[in-house]
Amino acid sequence: MTKSPASGLSLGIDIGGSKTHGILLDADGARLAESVRPTLTGADGVVATAIAVVTECLGQARDGVVSIGIGIPGQVDPATGVVRTAVNLGISELDLGERLTAALGLPVTIDNDVKAAALGAANHLGVADGDLAYLNFGTGVAAAAVVRGRLVRGHGNLAGEIGHIPVDPAGDRCHCGQRGCLEVLAGGGRIAARLAALGTGLTLPTLVQAAEAGDPGAVAEADRLCRGIALAVQLVVLTQGSERVVLGGGVIHTAPGLVPRVQDVLIARAAESEFLASLHLADRITVIPADYPVAAIGAALVGLRRTRARHLAPIG
Amino acid sequence: MTKSPASGLSLGIDIGGSKTHGILLDADGARLAESVRPTLTGADGVVATAIAVVTECLGQARDGVVSIGIGIPGQVDPATGVVRTAVNLGISELDLGERLTAALGLPVTIDNDVKAAALGAANHLGVADGDLAYLNFGTGVAAAAVVRGRLVRGHGNLAGEIGHIPVDPAGDRCHCGQRGCLEVLAGGGRIAARLAALGTGLTLPTLVQAAEAGDPGAVAEADRLCRGIALAVQLVVLTQGSERVVLGGGVIHTAPGLVPRVQDVLIARAAESEFLASLHLADRITVIPADYPVAAIGAALVGLRRTRARHLAPIG
Repeated sequence: MTKSPASGLSLGIDIGGSKTHGILLDADGARLAESVRPTLTGADGVVATAIAVVTECLGQARDGVVSIGIGIPGQVDPATGVVRTAVNLGISELDLGERLTAALGLPVTIDNDVKAAALGAANHLGVADGDLAYLNFGTGVAAAAVVRGRLVRGHGNLAGEIGHIPVDPAGDRCHCGQRGCLEVLAGGGRIAARLAALGTGLTLPTLVQAAEAGDPGAVAEADRLCRGIALAVQLVVLTQGSERVVLGGGVIHTAPGLVPRVQDVLIARAAESEFLASLHLADRITVIPADYPVAAIGAALVGLRRTRARHLAPIG
Repeated sequence: MTKSPASGLSLGIDIGGSKTHGILLDADGARLAESVRPTLTGADGVVATAIAVVTECLGQARDGVVSIGIGIPGQVDPATGVVRTAVNLGISELDLGERLTAALGLPVTIDNDVKAAALGAANHLGVADGDLAYLNFGTGVAAAAVVRGRLVRGHGNLAGEIGHIPVDPAGDRCHCGQRGCLEVLAGGGRIAARLAALGTGLTLPTLVQAAEAGDPGAVAEADRLCRGIALAVQLVVLTQGSERVVLGGGVIHTAPGLVPRVQDVLIARAAESEFLASLHLADRITVIPADYPVAAIGAALVGLRRTRARHLAPIG
């Protein structure tokens, strides 16, 4: 028997490079259950991890579940449920939607994790019909925009790959082959490599504090990172006119003091440009709380929207 | 008596820094009349020019006209018809919608000229419900995106101000106060100033030819310009996932050979980056024909859409 999507439970799963996070929500969005497991990599590992997290979240609640949504890195086609080039997960191509639907006996909707997180961010801010940009600073840098309550997907679901926009022709080479990409400045992978190369024991959790104490290596790295985040904020606001810019991802949550420093950079830049000052970029920023599972909640919303759309669609 | 918008004539006016272009379209989009006049600047000059162009276009057809749409540079609020900071027109603030509606006795809808042009570009390509970005390289650089047939306006109609995204921290100072903005690379105002400073008589119409002949000043300027246009294309595709990128504006139409050279730059960049190669950026480019009045046609569409929305809206 099919439950009405308005009254049922929804499940959201965020498959990340290190861990997979599942939550079970009731019809009012309250969290009923939660499960976190280390992500096994490779196609079979990812499928097994997702099934284990789903099973753990569902417990005895299976009968009430109307939708399962999954957020996963990589190029994701929500129409087919196929995931491509999720490098950190060891996946070149995986028909995740079909494999999970077959294993679980429930309809599963797949989306890109950052796109799912943008819906989660809109939900968190209570602006489900609004305009916002979500910027994710994890190993890499990516964005997703919600316009009038809908995700901007772009042709081939490409929208949001801002990490590979070059912002410095003299910058370091990016793994994508270009120079000076935003991801070189503000991607967690690059930052960790540079901090390790310093050999001073400096890490992301102590970066801003060390920069404030005047450590030259920390100052240089913090300035580069803050400039990258500030540029990403400016870029999405000027391109898409986003009223709010929500920051999330491991880099944001691991470096205490980072976001106020980014806001200081934006304010200093605005002092040099009346145009920038008129944008009030620092004021547009919201940080997603570290304990709010934004991508998992967004994934639940992705699944719920798809299921509702199916229920509303004419039959046959 | 109000004509049905489905059967009536629509008028579109593109108010530019040097000339104002009006067109009268029938319900099938065929051009019935056209008028071009030099733009008088200042608030009164702009209003007088618009009225003269409207009157000339209308001729005896006034009774059949259901909508008038105006595209104008600057910050435009289509809801109120107020235009702000249209610097090249000598306007700081002008209630253009109200003044024209009062003078003409017909409802007038105002929009930003580049946003109007994006609708004109969608119409030209026959993808009225599609996704595209329109990039305008005039005195400045600006963009507008159409997503699922609708303009992306952004909060405060800010979307598309990509000319002031910095792409080179070592670049020249922009009039906005920042360094290395896209507009510094590819805005017609800056290009003209640099060419004049060379003192070699080089102009935009001969730039690409002179660069191909090996003139060092021309090579440097053409490279900078092509890099700026190429970056703008990449930026809108990676941010919004635009399937097609339509190029227009005075710089594009005044410099023969420019767009193939931009495509060469994109192809050369793709050779250094598998990621860029996968985007096929050069293939996404379309140039609006120089004799297609894209902003005036788009302005007519803006007016027509607004009038249709009013007819469809519930009364009271």
